[in-house]
Amino acid sequence: MRKIPDMVIRRLSIYLRVLSTLVEKGINLVSSEELGRLSGCPGTQVRKDLAHFGQFGTRGVGYNSTELRSEISKILGTDRRWNVALIGVGHLGTALLVHERFKKHGFDIIVGFDVDKSKVGRKFHGVEIKDVSELKEVMSEKEIRIAIITVPAQSAQAIADLLVDAGVEAILNFAPANLSVPQNVILKNVDLSLELEGLSFFLTHKDFQSFNVAEFAS
Amino acid sequence: MRKIPDMVIRRLSIYLRVLSTLVEKGINLVSSEELGRLSGCPGTQVRKDLAHFGQFGTRGVGYNSTELRSEISKILGTDRRWNVALIGVGHLGTALLVHERFKKHGFDIIVGFDVDKSKVGRKFHGVEIKDVSELKEVMSEKEIRIAIITVPAQSAQAIADLLVDAGVEAILNFAPANLSVPQNVILKNVDLSLELEGLSFFLTHKDFQSFNVAEFAS
Repeated sequence: MRKIPDMVIRRLSIYLRVLSTLVEKGINLVSSEELGRLSGCPGTQVRKDLAHFGQFGTRGVGYNSTELRSEISKILGTDRRWNVALIGVGHLGTALLVHERFKKHGFDIIVGFDVDKSKVGRKFHGVEIKDVSELKEVMSEKEIRIAIITVPAQSAQAIADLLVDAGVEAILNFAPANLSVPQNVILKNVDLSLELEGLSFFLTHKDFQSFNVAEFAS
Repeated sequence: MRKIPDMVIRRLSIYLRVLSTLVEKGINLVSSEELGRLSGCPGTQVRKDLAHFGQFGTRGVGYNSTELRSEISKILGTDRRWNVALIGVGHLGTALLVHERFKKHGFDIIVGFDVDKSKVGRKFHGVEIKDVSELKEVMSEKEIRIAIITVPAQSAQAIADLLVDAGVEAILNFAPANLSVPQNVILKNVDLSLELEGLSFFLTHKDFQSFNVAEFAS
């Protein structure tokens, strides 16, 4: 079992978006330095990150944008589609149900779960909301391997337990709670305050400049 | 003007959370290797990241957890409080208004803006919602330097322009749109599909294991 820092995966996702923009612009060849510059990191980092997964590009020439995009998509598993369940159809959950970027990158939230009887049985933006008690049955029936938790912090562990029992393989947790899951379940916590700290840093340090990757955001 | 990759800032935020947990647990001394392990990166990375900002810790001994936490908090600008405006009080906006982690890390959303007359004048979770036309006046009156954009993609650039005109210094953009802002305004785009790609990667590559930093999420 090889260990890999989450930051490497995160950078691969960013390279993928940069490459998509380059392909759209008809730029077919890109050096690791240029790809790094557009992604906000040094070219050496690009080469090091990719080296985890094989040999890409031609030394002294660069990468073919379309090919590298396709390779990275395969590495990230976004060359296929994933069925996703969302648990907790409150404000954040509803916002994620309609989030167009998930679909764009291969993730289909195909079912929502809630305990609120006034929501169960309804459709939110085309997605059916079911009772949490149906979770195990629906997860296996629809071959759902990924779940997003958007319930309040105090309910999050109970939901995680249900998901693990239902055979979930990966959880994206938005609840501000430290969840325990078995080692074979992948757990990723989203902490949006990190993003604000990225701003307060630059407001505090006017002598530092960000590598601006804003143009490759969508 | 020194350039610094966003990933360095992101790791500083993670070190900060790990150090807070260590302090809470009464662990007063931590090596760069251990801090790295708990943060999901090598110890050399910890030392390299910190070296941007000075000299910390004692060679061969490690860091004092409380001191390093305080130093990193200063670096990130979270040793003070920030007034934040939120524009777009839809589902995502409402979810962020009540997000307890923002407050915990020094960010106070003190006002919301919307164009929807049924929302303007009301309070959402203690935060007053004002009309977007009042943006410039309120921003200067309340000394707001940071704004969060949670409007639909097609309105995002117009809101960014208003914010720039109102003298905003930093924008966190949740809208899936490529915004243009002057170079002196810091723009950070949040793309939540990156988080899901972090899961599909590990589902695709069962031979890779994540550095698990889940226990330091809150």
